[in-house]
Amino acid sequence: MRWGTLAIIGVGLIGGSIGLAARQRGLVERVLGVGRRDSSLAEAKQMGAIDEGSTDLDDAIPQADLAIFCTPVDQIAGQIQQAFSLAKQGAIFTDAGSTKNRIVAAVEEKLPEGIYFVGSHPLAGSEKKGPTHAVPHLFENRVVVVTPTEKSRPETVERVSAFWAALGARVKLMKPLEHDRALALTSHLPHLIASALAGILPDEFRELAASGFRDTTRIAASDPHLWKAIFHQNWKAILESADKFEKQLHDLRRAMVVNPDWLVELLEKGKKNREALEKLNRE
Amino acid sequence: MRWGTLAIIGVGLIGGSIGLAARQRGLVERVLGVGRRDSSLAEAKQMGAIDEGSTDLDDAIPQADLAIFCTPVDQIAGQIQQAFSLAKQGAIFTDAGSTKNRIVAAVEEKLPEGIYFVGSHPLAGSEKKGPTHAVPHLFENRVVVVTPTEKSRPETVERVSAFWAALGARVKLMKPLEHDRALALTSHLPHLIASALAGILPDEFRELAASGFRDTTRIAASDPHLWKAIFHQNWKAILESADKFEKQLHDLRRAMVVNPDWLVELLEKGKKNREALEKLNRE
Repeated sequence: MRWGTLAIIGVGLIGGSIGLAARQRGLVERVLGVGRRDSSLAEAKQMGAIDEGSTDLDDAIPQADLAIFCTPVDQIAGQIQQAFSLAKQGAIFTDAGSTKNRIVAAVEEKLPEGIYFVGSHPLAGSEKKGPTHAVPHLFENRVVVVTPTEKSRPETVERVSAFWAALGARVKLMKPLEHDRALALTSHLPHLIASALAGILPDEFRELAASGFRDTTRIAASDPHLWKAIFHQNWKAILESADKFEKQLHDLRRAMVVNPDWLVELLEKGKKNREALEKLNRE
Repeated sequence: MRWGTLAIIGVGLIGGSIGLAARQRGLVERVLGVGRRDSSLAEAKQMGAIDEGSTDLDDAIPQADLAIFCTPVDQIAGQIQQAFSLAKQGAIFTDAGSTKNRIVAAVEEKLPEGIYFVGSHPLAGSEKKGPTHAVPHLFENRVVVVTPTEKSRPETVERVSAFWAALGARVKLMKPLEHDRALALTSHLPHLIASALAGILPDEFRELAASGFRDTTRIAASDPHLWKAIFHQNWKAILESADKFEKQLHDLRRAMVVNPDWLVELLEKGKKNREALEKLNRE
């Protein structure tokens, strides 16, 4: 199950953590990092996330047995397409993007003979970014969604799934569109909501915002450009989820004014769901 | 600045923490706890939050120099009114309710000669409840809003403010209605939003809800009956805040679909506000 050369394109929080974990667990012979800035690559090398760094795909891709693209979602498909002509026969590509349908469709459309791809999305991360925050245990007991299609070679799906599992993750297979619809509600919508709530806080109320407000808006501190790209790639499913949320908020609003029993019922539902989540997380 | 007998009515997370902190800091000679259940009172006594417990206001109020009502917001005003006839001359009453305008108005309407009251709201707590979670440092560096009116005696406001400050809190004076309008946005609305989001999570998506969803919905696990009462007392201001939130969410929705630059601008605004909050919290 050991791999030869792993190329990580985009050595930030996710890419850096993959490198650290893969090297510490002895899953790969060598890790090559590709990034935009020499300073980040030097930092990633110093902390043990990569063996060598380069700002050029040409240096890393020709040697890679496995290449993982951890760049912003609006860059992944283009970079993978660009990398195809550089890859050796039998190379396997995957990514770590938070959206899947557009990326997978764009990549599969151009997939050459003898190069293999399946999409991935590790449900790990935070509002922090950069290799400084990379940690080798980031994927332990976290879900990684792998998104095969009818075009995927079963061996590719198995090997990529095994790689994530070897980092400590629980792998879940989903269709790309099914993934995007679920994540619209479980990840993208919460970001939109957190941003909306943080956005309306007047300066003069700041000292009156206690832990409840802080928790509910924590992810509003995420990178706006990364999230602009995610929202753009999945806007239809996000709007559908937002409709559901607004319907529920309106029920709560109405219940608050006209029907205390209904209000308790709605609050109980939220509490039950939230507690089930906590329980799952402790397992 | 030392008090004689402190009575705490409602010995849960907040009341228990007041008792622990006041006793450990030597602010009071004696703490009497009033609660509904003997078992909770025994627990509070065992952990050092109170000296004696009783299920009856009659046992504690006649001895109290300072009485703090830490019961649900829909019970506070009635209990304080009931306690007036039991109180000794010169006794000072306050509360720890999350809403202020209705409570303060109801109490001041019945305030007898020689008994004093000013409302308080410690911005501390969590989705947890009960004396088990009480901690003596709960109020350290937290804001406690004290809400005098033109009917309040300045000495009462000073003494109650000094009590909270002695627990380590930063005291902020606000009018009751001004408090309720601010907290509608900084506390009550986040609870409504967290509940709405948690409420629409389908069981089958649960394992796809990562840290972003979990943070954004944490306070949905709060007690539905406590929050029903808070929502009921402050529904007008909450609806106003919810309107602002929905307007912002709609701007984000529209920007997501039609205008990436505007979307980034809105996300930057949320990020800036959230980071200012984090910075304030570290000070």
